[in-house]
Amino acid sequence: MKIQIFCVGGTIDKIYFDAKSKYEVGSPAIGKLLAELSIHFSYKVDSLMAKDSLEMTDEDRRLIREAVMNSSSDRILITHGTDTMPETARALLGIDGKTIVLTGALAPAIFRDSDAAFNVGGALAAAQSKPAGVYIVMNGEVFDGDKVRKDVEANRFVGLAS
Amino acid sequence: MKIQIFCVGGTIDKIYFDAKSKYEVGSPAIGKLLAELSIHFSYKVDSLMAKDSLEMTDEDRRLIREAVMNSSSDRILITHGTDTMPETARALLGIDGKTIVLTGALAPAIFRDSDAAFNVGGALAAAQSKPAGVYIVMNGEVFDGDKVRKDVEANRFVGLAS
Amino acid sequence: MKIQIFCVGGTIDKIYFDAKSKYEVGSPAIGKLLAELSIHFSYKVDSLMAKDSLEMTDEDRRLIREAVMNSSSDRILITHGTDTMPETARALLGIDGKTIVLTGALAPAIFRDSDAAFNVGGALAAAQSKPAGVYIVMNGEVFDGDKVRKDVEANRFVGLAS
Amino acid sequence: MKIQIFCVGGTIDKIYFDAKSKYEVGSPAIGKLLAELSIHFSYKVDSLMAKDSLEMTDEDRRLIREAVMNSSSDRILITHGTDTMPETARALLGIDGKTIVLTGALAPAIFRDSDAAFNVGGALAAAQSKPAGVYIVMNGEVFDGDKVRKDVEANRFVGLAS
Repeated sequence: MKIQIFCVGGTIDKIYFDAKSKYEVGSPAIGKLLAELSIHFSYKVDSLMAKDSLEMTDEDRRLIREAVMNSSSDRILITHGTDTMPETARALLGIDGKTIVLTGALAPAIFRDSDAAFNVGGALAAAQSKPAGVYIVMNGEVFDGDKVRKDVEANRFVGLAS
Repeated sequence: MKIQIFCVGGTIDKIYFDAKSKYEVGSPAIGKLLAELSIHFSYKVDSLMAKDSLEMTDEDRRLIREAVMNSSSDRILITHGTDTMPETARALLGIDGKTIVLTGALAPAIFRDSDAAFNVGGALAAAQSKPAGVYIVMNGEVFDGDKVRKDVEANRFVGLAS
Repeated sequence: MKIQIFCVGGTIDKIYFDAKSKYEVGSPAIGKLLAELSIHFSYKVDSLMAKDSLEMTDEDRRLIREAVMNSSSDRILITHGTDTMPETARALLGIDGKTIVLTGALAPAIFRDSDAAFNVGGALAAAQSKPAGVYIVMNGEVFDGDKVRKDVEANRFVGLAS
Repeated sequence: MKIQIFCVGGTIDKIYFDAKSKYEVGSPAIGKLLAELSIHFSYKVDSLMAKDSLEMTDEDRRLIREAVMNSSSDRILITHGTDTMPETARALLGIDGKTIVLTGALAPAIFRDSDAAFNVGGALAAAQSKPAGVYIVMNGEVFDGDKVRKDVEANRFVGLAS
């Protein structure tokens, strides 16, 4: 098994700069997270961009789609901001022969109570278990990429009826 | 979706008693872990026993198999000690129509660097994604229940060639 | 012993709002922190304001000084933003008969690697151990309130030669 | 300032070996703990022994007393098991010109909810703030070394009336 991990920013990677009292997107959290666990399959982490997902453009999504298509791996995990994760999922539909799983976190990975490790564990398992297609793993659930939205009020992902 | 979670003990549930300077198996860690996350699907946690997996008997495994067969759910997650997790997986083979996923942790869930949340996230995703059968999710991998062993020296799970 | 704890905001209390992608000062972190420890002396936590310390005004410092003077306790702990902690310490000089200790954190208490618990432990010990006067406890050191500055570049507190 | 830190074992240093399902005393936790914080004063960590404090003998306490007396530093911090910490404190009474502070933890430093960082922060502050003598810092309090006992039932330290 070989999993290609692409990181594009989002809350999971958010860090905090004291002087300026604001968050910025830092280096991919999933790299440190996996390095601290006992992982023995082959994976590669590449940062494509480091953006708050609200600021992602069509051009950014085109770039992600290209990276996925050009990857030699057919198991792709993408860490992504939560606000527009469903939009990016839809922009990745229709790529033959690849299982593409998006995940992220509702709280930065550096937080004591972050959901990052739980979500990444789920996304890795889905990437190995699901047939080709696009999926979002958040809140402990594996959603089809074209049947999920973020409920911003409730701060969670909700499946759409088929 | 409805997931039935059975807990039988193991390292994931280990706690520590200062006075006696030793570990004992405590109440199921997965209950607290899921309660602290934002989980919105229906799940039920039942503790079947609280044993170090080295002490599990054929009778214990018969009891687990019965609980799985009697469950009205066809998605089953079992938290289990790591040392004999593959033996229990094999004792659960051949149950029709149910996806059964075993997981646990190499370090107790109360440890700062425990793999518990990561593993449970993976096991939940596998339980939703895999066809009927028995699986072990450890070290970020989804193993077939009849093709995995624990490498005790290396303290990790290894897949067996088909 | 009775310790009065005043909270005025700062990094230690910073929380993060996903929707807006920015930090805001939340409720006093020291309350939750002490509640989770096994503390048996009498203490009281009062929030005076919730400000980034760069935004603190002379009026704010007058308000803090009044609260300290009006407190019936002679052991006072103040959690405060780090950037202007020395200024507030100086504004509290010359209050007879009270040991006043300021502390805070370089990383929010909700962060995995926050120095909050370490600093608060130090501040409590200093409040019990020091004669009347004003002190800052940061970076594991007990500084005299009139002989300390924050080295913003190095992100740490440095004592001034007497 | 120069602080000499001696480590003699105890719960704070407890680690866990999966294979044997039991705890053992590991290398000094205070070294890692301080290394991860932003500490800029000079300190030295020396491990004198690695014992559960229930197993400490008079000979062990004689060895600790000698190490303290032979140290060139007059600010000494000792991390110690909690069960007999008061006994060791009493064995260190009457050393002229040195401030000696004992601390430890009710839960191992590797636990998510350990009191280790909080206690060590307090012990460092007390070592800097107190006149020569012997002290115990536990549960957020600075106790005189000859006026404190551990309440084993309540799992906490209690001051004795003078």
